[in-house]
Amino acid sequence: MLTFYYARGTCALATHIALEDAGADYAAVRVDFASEEQRKAPYLAINPKGRVPALVTDQGILTETPALLAFVAQSFPAARLAPTDDAFAFAKMQAFNSYLCSTVHVAHAHRMRGSRWADDPAAIAEMKRKVPESVTNAFLLIEQGMLEGPWVMGRDYSICDPYLFTLSQWLELDGVDLARLPRVVEHRARMAERGSVRHAITMETAE
Amino acid sequence: MLTFYYARGTCALATHIALEDAGADYAAVRVDFASEEQRKAPYLAINPKGRVPALVTDQGILTETPALLAFVAQSFPAARLAPTDDAFAFAKMQAFNSYLCSTVHVAHAHRMRGSRWADDPAAIAEMKRKVPESVTNAFLLIEQGMLEGPWVMGRDYSICDPYLFTLSQWLELDGVDLARLPRVVEHRARMAERGSVRHAITMETAE
Repeated sequence: MLTFYYARGTCALATHIALEDAGADYAAVRVDFASEEQRKAPYLAINPKGRVPALVTDQGILTETPALLAFVAQSFPAARLAPTDDAFAFAKMQAFNSYLCSTVHVAHAHRMRGSRWADDPAAIAEMKRKVPESVTNAFLLIEQGMLEGPWVMGRDYSICDPYLFTLSQWLELDGVDLARLPRVVEHRARMAERGSVRHAITMETAE
Repeated sequence: MLTFYYARGTCALATHIALEDAGADYAAVRVDFASEEQRKAPYLAINPKGRVPALVTDQGILTETPALLAFVAQSFPAARLAPTDDAFAFAKMQAFNSYLCSTVHVAHAHRMRGSRWADDPAAIAEMKRKVPESVTNAFLLIEQGMLEGPWVMGRDYSICDPYLFTLSQWLELDGVDLARLPRVVEHRARMAERGSVRHAITMETAE
């Protein structure tokens, strides 16, 4: 049995979708960012980083989206969510997810989480101003190359797809001109039709 | 045969050490950041992101440190650089490396690469000012919990160790008070004694 901690509107959605894709038996627990539940003792005992997602397993607690996605894929091989028997293909998939977490998500985070890297309100406002440009540039590399189509890794759906879908949810709020990313937008639309995606989003948005 | 692209003083050192640990047959090619070689056409044909590391394999090109480290571990199983047969232990290792790339390295990058996220010189200076605090906080979570000791994952050396070692090279320049990180400093000293580490550093620093 797995217990999955997420918050609304966060990158945790990627792992949530993957758990649905895998047909995993799990309980989902919402962490309320509005009341800063992620910075209080009960949640910090689960994840000292004060972030989501976190996955409580029988063996211990796991964090970090790329690690969780690969864990889900490896734990539910029948769902065929990753090329776990091919080191090169697995690394290519991991490279994509690593780019999402360390470049794409980080570019986005400068809109709402600038206080991680500056205290001066003027500097935080300047970071926010540049987000449309930096997020666009990060996504253009995906648009023009990494996204093979129809799925990220080409013919086969993988754990890259829910992660790209999740970060592409934020494009409008990040001020990105969608006309520059037609393939990313088309991928997003195709993902939105999947039952696993609809179910994860319904769970996360329910009162 | 592998061809490994790196630049001096970058996170590429982690993969370089892992290639040495693995006993891999590889050629190392230096990319000259001083002349901005990473932004010119020949290197962009290898890695359109304009960053290091990149690893050219017989199957294609791989990038992103966490992906490369896992690829080296999986490709050279005899070196026992990762628990590749245990999904939970593998995910724990990946979570550590993902934290290094998306939180620790990103905190550090605000000292020299602030122009990724702001244009105003005052904002870039403000980011730089906060680096000692943000890098210290990122490393304190490692010091106080994640670093199990003697190696990151405990008894067994893994691909987490060269990555932590590489980022801990920058602590002094990031303005971090080493007295707050005795276990990280001790890990760094133990790593520096390894032949693989000495060899990779000697290659990277040779004229």
